Parts: sequence; C-alpha cells; structure tokens
Amino acid sequence: MTIKVYGTKESTCSQRVYLALHEKEICDYHIVHVDLLKGEHKRPEFLKIQPFAKIPVYQDEEVTIFESRAIVRYIAEKFKDKGTTTLYGRNLKEKGLVEQWVEVESQNYNPPVDVIVHEEYFNPKYWGATKPNEQVVQENVSKLEKVLDVYEAHLSKNKYLAGDFYSIADLVHIPYTYFLIKYTTKGHVITSRKHVKAWFDDISARKSWQKIAKEYINES
Amino acid sequence: MTIKVYGTKESTCSQRVYLALHEKEICDYHIVHVDLLKGEHKRPEFLKIQPFAKIPVYQDEEVTIFESRAIVRYIAEKFKDKGTTTLYGRNLKEKGLVEQWVEVESQNYNPPVDVIVHEEYFNPKYWGATKPNEQVVQENVSKLEKVLDVYEAHLSKNKYLAGDFYSIADLVHIPYTYFLIKYTTKGHVITSRKHVKAWFDDISARKSWQKIAKEYINES
Repeated sequence: MTIKVYGTKESTCSQRVYLALHEKEICDYHIVHVDLLKGEHKRPEFLKIQPFAKIPVYQDEEVTIFESRAIVRYIAEKFKDKGTTTLYGRNLKEKGLVEQWVEVESQNYNPPVDVIVHEEYFNPKYWGATKPNEQVVQENVSKLEKVLDVYEAHLSKNKYLAGDFYSIADLVHIPYTYFLIKYTTKGHVITSRKHVKAWFDDISARKSWQKIAKEYINES
Repeated sequence: MTIKVYGTKESTCSQRVYLALHEKEICDYHIVHVDLLKGEHKRPEFLKIQPFAKIPVYQDEEVTIFESRAIVRYIAEKFKDKGTTTLYGRNLKEKGLVEQWVEVESQNYNPPVDVIVHEEYFNPKYWGATKPNEQVVQENVSKLEKVLDVYEAHLSKNKYLAGDFYSIADLVHIPYTYFLIKYTTKGHVITSRKHVKAWFDDISARKSWQKIAKEYINES
C-alpha cells in the first residue's frame, strides 16, 4: 500500500500523522512537501484535496482524509493489529476514554499551546513577526496552567491519559508539547509538574517520536 | 441500562448527546440538571466526574465520559445496530470521512459559531452582558463565511457531509446552527447559501431534533 502524507517535516499537525504511522510500524510512507511559504496550500490542485487549505492530508489507495486527529483515528483503526495495538484502547470502554482525552487535547490543551508556540516560535521564524505579543502569551499560559493542574492530578493516578496504556490520546499531545518545551520560554509549565513531566518524558522517549524529532526536526 | 446525562436542556453541547441518543431510539435517558448559574459545575462532587467543570457528562453502568463529541462517538459505536445505523458510516472509508467532518466542525465551524451565539444570545440572556461586541461578532461572521463557502461547494455534490448518508458529522452541527438561525441576527450566513440551507433544513427536520427543539428549547 502506498501512503502519501501532504505536509511538511516541521509541521506539528503533520507530525501527529507521522507518529501514528511509526507506532504502526509503517515507515515507508511518502511525504509530499507542501511549501506554505510559497502558498502551495492555496493552489487549486491542493484545494481539490483540502478545500480549507491546511496540512496534513493523508492519502492511500482507498481514501483521502484531512484533519490530523481524524487521520490518526483512521490509522489506529485501519491498522489495528499492527505495531502498538492499544492506540484505540482494548475495548469499547477504553476507546470511549481515549476519545474523551483526544477531545480534551483538541478543546482544552491545544488552543493555548498553539498560541504560545506560534507567538514565540513559528511566527518569528516563518511569518515575519518581530516579537511575541507578551500579553497574549501570558493569557494563554494562564489558561494552560489551569488545564495542566487537572492533568497533574489525573496523571498522579494514571500512567497514561486514558488509563494504563499508551493511546492516540497521548500521541496527539506530543508534537506541540515538544515545541513548547524546546523552542519557547514557557516549557516550565510542563517540566515543573512532576507527573505531567514524567508522562511527557515517557511518551516522547518512544522510538516513534525519537525518530521524528531526530530526522524531521533536529536535522531540518 | 440506565443512562444519565449531566447537563441542561438548553445547553447546545448537551443537545449533541441527546440527539445521538434519540437517533439510537434511546429515549429513556435521565437528565441530571447541572445549574450553571448556581455554579454547580464547579462543586467538588461534579469535579469528580468532570474535572474541567464543563457539561455534558454521560454515564451508564460501564463508563463515565465527558466532551460531547467523544460521547457522541461512543454512543454511535456502542449502539451501532440500533436506530440510525449510518451514524459512523458503513465501512472504514466512510468512517474516516465521518471523522474528518466531525473534526472540521470542531476546528473550523464551531469556533466562530460559538462566539456569535454567545455574544448575541447566551451572554445577554444568562451572563449579564448588556450588548454584543459587534467587532468580535463581525470578525467571526467573516471567518464563518469562508468556512461556509467550502461547505456550499461540498454540499452541492454531496447530500450529507460525509457522503450520501446521515452521520454524526452532520449531527454535531445541529444545535449551534439552530441557535444561530433562531436567536441571532446572523442566520443569513446559513439561509442565504442554497445547498447549506437545504442540508440544514433536512437534518434539522429529523424526528430526533424536532423532539429536542420542541421539548427542550421552545418549551423551556
């Protein structure tokens, strides 16, 4: 099966998809580079597969799917018996809890992290911003800290978000959290919380993320 | 099976859950009213089941799950052979497209609609706002119109979002869109687009939504 991912190596959302593929031991996917700086995501041929002009897009012989969390779910289900088999939990109850925590990431966790990482890293690096808007950053740090207080209490009783198994609920957090720690001044919100730090150290040490961090981020 | 939904009748997010239950012909669930105006969602006993202090929460003998879209997915899967059986598509490919459009709703569609409905309806009605912030409303109308232009093109070729079948991708849009049309001055963004209007007329005419609109909204 030929799998294409339209994206970039350094796109955090695309990295969720690469990560899911690596957890499933599918390493021979092909990245079709979409040059955002040249506006390639807004060209007619790209809009045919992603009319909202965003990366990533996943494509195999059967489907074309966009939105990173939808793609990750699809990969977890399509290749359920390959590689890490707990990505969607081991039964319906666990799957429900996986979905719950993917939604928590999407609704509560990612919005403030996204703003901080863009203000301090992506906007100055790629989009011509001269300096971060400190007030916006601080507001989002405050929001994020409230969310992380809940994570800290939860992770003091659970090794992973959905229970005692690694799942896509953990996976979807990895790319943005890595950038938050490595490329912004606000990584302490993670590293100062004992259980959150231990959880992130664990999930980011997995072979899947180590490969992406090494080959797609640190060498790019 | 006893099913409880912690929420309110007029909460749009809770209504997603009621809607999914009605599509599955499960009408004997019990609503545990959480009085947001009295701050009941912030009390210790509620935080035990929803530590982020939000409604709705779904509970049956097996699980307690929060986040409306996670709950809707759980219901679609747990009761897959009951009632409307296409909620998650009929095969893996269709399920992938359902997930894609649920994510589009969550990431692209709902954020601007949520702001408009809160500015013009919920905030004045419940939270003491004297008038909407017109600039904020207008910014979000502009964002929403761009999203809806894509919907319009897509729905000119597809009866429902994920294809020729009604699914949770359509369902998750209903409550907020109903409020947008009925209780704000911006409903024309939906009704002025031929195919979006036809789609919404269709999905909101379903027995499931008619029941909720009548019993939970118009009579409350």
